[in-house]
Amino acid sequence: MGGDNRNSSKKPILIVGLCCMDIVNFVDKYPEEDSDTRVFEQTTCLGGNAANSITVLHQLEANCELFASLPKNNSILKTLIHNAGFNIERCLEREDCEVPVSTVIANRTNGTRTILHYRGSMPELSCEEFIAAYADRINQYGWIHFEGRNFDEVAKMMTYVLSHRKNEYPKISVELEKVRPYPYFEQLVPQPNVVFMSKDFARAQGWNSMSEAVLSFQSKYISANLAIICPWGDQGVAGRESPSSSLIIQQAFTPEIVMDTLGAGDCFLGACLYYLNGEHNLQTVLEKASQIAGKKCGMKGLTNLDLHSFVAH
Amino acid sequence: MGGDNRNSSKKPILIVGLCCMDIVNFVDKYPEEDSDTRVFEQTTCLGGNAANSITVLHQLEANCELFASLPKNNSILKTLIHNAGFNIERCLEREDCEVPVSTVIANRTNGTRTILHYRGSMPELSCEEFIAAYADRINQYGWIHFEGRNFDEVAKMMTYVLSHRKNEYPKISVELEKVRPYPYFEQLVPQPNVVFMSKDFARAQGWNSMSEAVLSFQSKYISANLAIICPWGDQGVAGRESPSSSLIIQQAFTPEIVMDTLGAGDCFLGACLYYLNGEHNLQTVLEKASQIAGKKCGMKGLTNLDLHSFVAH
Repeated sequence: MGGDNRNSSKKPILIVGLCCMDIVNFVDKYPEEDSDTRVFEQTTCLGGNAANSITVLHQLEANCELFASLPKNNSILKTLIHNAGFNIERCLEREDCEVPVSTVIANRTNGTRTILHYRGSMPELSCEEFIAAYADRINQYGWIHFEGRNFDEVAKMMTYVLSHRKNEYPKISVELEKVRPYPYFEQLVPQPNVVFMSKDFARAQGWNSMSEAVLSFQSKYISANLAIICPWGDQGVAGRESPSSSLIIQQAFTPEIVMDTLGAGDCFLGACLYYLNGEHNLQTVLEKASQIAGKKCGMKGLTNLDLHSFVAH
Repeated sequence: MGGDNRNSSKKPILIVGLCCMDIVNFVDKYPEEDSDTRVFEQTTCLGGNAANSITVLHQLEANCELFASLPKNNSILKTLIHNAGFNIERCLEREDCEVPVSTVIANRTNGTRTILHYRGSMPELSCEEFIAAYADRINQYGWIHFEGRNFDEVAKMMTYVLSHRKNEYPKISVELEKVRPYPYFEQLVPQPNVVFMSKDFARAQGWNSMSEAVLSFQSKYISANLAIICPWGDQGVAGRESPSSSLIIQQAFTPEIVMDTLGAGDCFLGACLYYLNGEHNLQTVLEKASQIAGKKCGMKGLTNLDLHSFVAH
């Protein structure tokens, strides 16, 4: 970060992770067990952290690409991806598998989002597949982001990128979102340039604020070049470029009417990647990404965010 | 009922009602609001009372047919209907509409079924459409059953059948399941030969047992030829052919292990129609249909019930 490398800023961003389907049910009251409840509106949309983030990157006119497993025979998902418009040319099509589906109960009265996640039977990406798809082109990317799932294979992919990249590009980042025991995520920590850490993840470590989370993480996993970004919902986001940099606290841009917070975290992350890849400093990254995430919370869905004013030309 | 009219028993059964999609999510614990829960198994299956009942009739090798609205562009639903195998030749395909979807949270620990029903945007059937499809063939049917929804149009369809049928065939039945204010369902009551009344419907009238429901309903809406059937879950079913007949109480055939109760009521109703159309008396109807519904509760889903031993040859 810092500096001004225009060449690198034009290099594409690769996101490695999950693409799934979200079925969002809007209700007026959270259903009691064993009752019948009317759903006022239902939308089927793309889900999965990686798919959500790249949906936003694509709207920022970034040169970006998704690497994910996709089910071969799911016309709904294909239509949703086609409409979102991002690049899936190196994604892997899986035969005879069920796509992961998140069923969401969205309470219009109090804004809660209750998520029932079904993993399906779609095989995760292997490092071998990653190498087969990207071995000869790793150095074309400016940034590669890895969703924090499928830990063993993702750790191998990150190691592969680190040992094959040239002049420290592509930069790499990882998102630690899911609450897992230490051994799973510790293998991912020393490697990336940037770690995104979720509120749930931080709390599971016993860190009760975003500032505490950033400072504690950096002192626990000390690495001179490791930046931490820790978004904390409507309280904003904390981040620090390195253990010797200043702590940056950015307040959230909460819209007057909060319409839909589903995917806001993935939107924030995608926007961060855009500005990180553009070599902006962390203050600019967090400020711009927070503006975009705030704008998203005032709108339904992730596909029509109207981000032209944020596009860097 | 009673009598022995072999000709009539061979005539087809028509069911008029809803075909929708059920997405069933199996969990180990009912989700708390605003939490993330893992779904262990998810199945997408046909739903809608009419579609469920005809799925069972088809397995009883009945000559049967569904009249429903179907979405033109929903490949999942088309595949499900194709696999179920029943006759949809006169169903109406609707353009550009969303199919109704019931999202079900099935708690494997205590057997509860929490249903979130989304109505979609698929137009209901109109009486005009019913007449266009069936005016020249009403008298070919032995029985026409109407799902108790879309009340105004269904009342007109029932009136049409009554005024155009010959020698009291086809017989007609209606299911009063949903809890609605009186004016909606009272228009349906005097017309049919058989009323199916749900437990929820009965309770909303202030009737607290299946026997009370049958007796009270018949004394309130007195009609010499109106039979009532009131299933009451695992307590069994009560029925009476007419206000001058004996009250029949049939216990449920609860399987040793209850696997899945979703659609059991629709299964029971379909089985009743089969024996009603076969001109069996009410005692036989309720006994056989209860056996079939009990068998269903011991199995997952509605499509592979293995009902060969129940088929009348």
